[in-house]
Amino acid sequence: MTTTLINGELISLISAQDRAVQYGDGLFETIAWRHGKLELWSQHMARMQRGCQRLGMPVIDEKIWLDDIKQLPLADKAVIKLIQSRGVGGRGYRYQTDMTPTRAVSVHAWPDYPSHWAEQGVMVRLCQTPVSVNRALAGIKHLNRLDNVLARNEWQDTHIAEGLMSNDAGMVIEGTMSNLFAVKNNVLLTPALQQSGVCGVMRERVIAIAQAQSMQVTECDIKQNELFTMDELFLTNSLIGIWPVKQLEQQIFQVGKVTCLLKQSLIMELNKYGASI
Amino acid sequence: MTTTLINGELISLISAQDRAVQYGDGLFETIAWRHGKLELWSQHMARMQRGCQRLGMPVIDEKIWLDDIKQLPLADKAVIKLIQSRGVGGRGYRYQTDMTPTRAVSVHAWPDYPSHWAEQGVMVRLCQTPVSVNRALAGIKHLNRLDNVLARNEWQDTHIAEGLMSNDAGMVIEGTMSNLFAVKNNVLLTPALQQSGVCGVMRERVIAIAQAQSMQVTECDIKQNELFTMDELFLTNSLIGIWPVKQLEQQIFQVGKVTCLLKQSLIMELNKYGASI
Repeated sequence: MTTTLINGELISLISAQDRAVQYGDGLFETIAWRHGKLELWSQHMARMQRGCQRLGMPVIDEKIWLDDIKQLPLADKAVIKLIQSRGVGGRGYRYQTDMTPTRAVSVHAWPDYPSHWAEQGVMVRLCQTPVSVNRALAGIKHLNRLDNVLARNEWQDTHIAEGLMSNDAGMVIEGTMSNLFAVKNNVLLTPALQQSGVCGVMRERVIAIAQAQSMQVTECDIKQNELFTMDELFLTNSLIGIWPVKQLEQQIFQVGKVTCLLKQSLIMELNKYGASI
Repeated sequence: MTTTLINGELISLISAQDRAVQYGDGLFETIAWRHGKLELWSQHMARMQRGCQRLGMPVIDEKIWLDDIKQLPLADKAVIKLIQSRGVGGRGYRYQTDMTPTRAVSVHAWPDYPSHWAEQGVMVRLCQTPVSVNRALAGIKHLNRLDNVLARNEWQDTHIAEGLMSNDAGMVIEGTMSNLFAVKNNVLLTPALQQSGVCGVMRERVIAIAQAQSMQVTECDIKQNELFTMDELFLTNSLIGIWPVKQLEQQIFQVGKVTCLLKQSLIMELNKYGASI
């Protein structure tokens, strides 16, 4: 099912001494390929660039990524994953500044989420595993994802679509694979990500759409408990777009007006944006 | 220089879809091979077992690791690194519980630290990169090491041997590749590692040796500022044993009595312990 290119070559193996293996020293992007387009391509590239700056890695030109992607066997709808690692290096945390980064580009089947989740909403739980806190790593999509792995594997019930992760101060940060939004008195709220979490490209688009519609958007600390007092909740990521939350733990939520409005705008937006290859 | 075995085979490549690459979903150990022995072997195995329990991974029998190590070309003195990843899996944080873990066993040249560092002490700095905070991951030697990578690469001055990492509350936790001890009024202090850091096997041995000599040992919160008021400071890891700190930032420290005593005891201890292969 999965085809992988390493540095543009149709091989699925990388050096065990690559720093992605040794330390998770790298970045990734998960991109929706749909109807002949790489959705939100320029946003994904921009985030990877920000990640490179934060980690002190060279930026790989987007043409190189696109040339890799062109070699992949692409169905009508697929998931494309890009990994940029710092490269193959010696033992020890210190790296050489002239290292050549490693590219891993792979195509995966579209996840088989039940189709009603997008319209009718999803069931969500609260995770016990805390989100990792580190302001030097917050926001970027780096390869150190053990907190998400442990949180996602707290539940096996396939009716539950997502789990929310919080820090030890009781602030909710994100879902294991998504960003979280809440609506309260027509204000759009989303957790601040200065200390933890990933700034999703879909989160960015939703914020931009809401602001373009003169909606008030606030990035702030949100206590886990406060979630139960919100009018609407929804989740975002590059593949799902927007999933309304219909149930958090035992509490039922309505699929609200604001969520539906943003969802409609987002669908139109995604039709406009995106790169062809 | 480096020879790597993957799952017992003399190949140096692993699948790009391995969860070590994708998420840093695994553990490692760095072991001193010296005078025909794997130093502190049972302690390394015990820590890896604790890591497996914490991450929900199966424990690999130590005989399997030893069989791998026997295949390596070993000089008189070398560094052996073991990596256990959760294995090759699909895209997404969720893992299958029946996955076969991947073993990567490699041998590396002994690091060329100046020989006077161990006797006369080392120069140490304070890092700006904060240590990652997550009580679910603290203590174990997992593969999510971007905080150590960024901290280690803050300095290029080869006279500086190590940098100390702290959390945002100003508590010092560890060195980028070592654990930290301080002596104050003949009490041995070392940072508590419930929220961050790696519980080093050498740290464990030093605590055990000190306690066997009826020294008072306290694992506690230590403020970065308090370091400058300590009588002695030293660093530990599996390769260096004990390095006295002779300078922290601008402040000079003496190589103290307690450090020397523990260092002597440790050398005798290491001669006793260790597995032959």
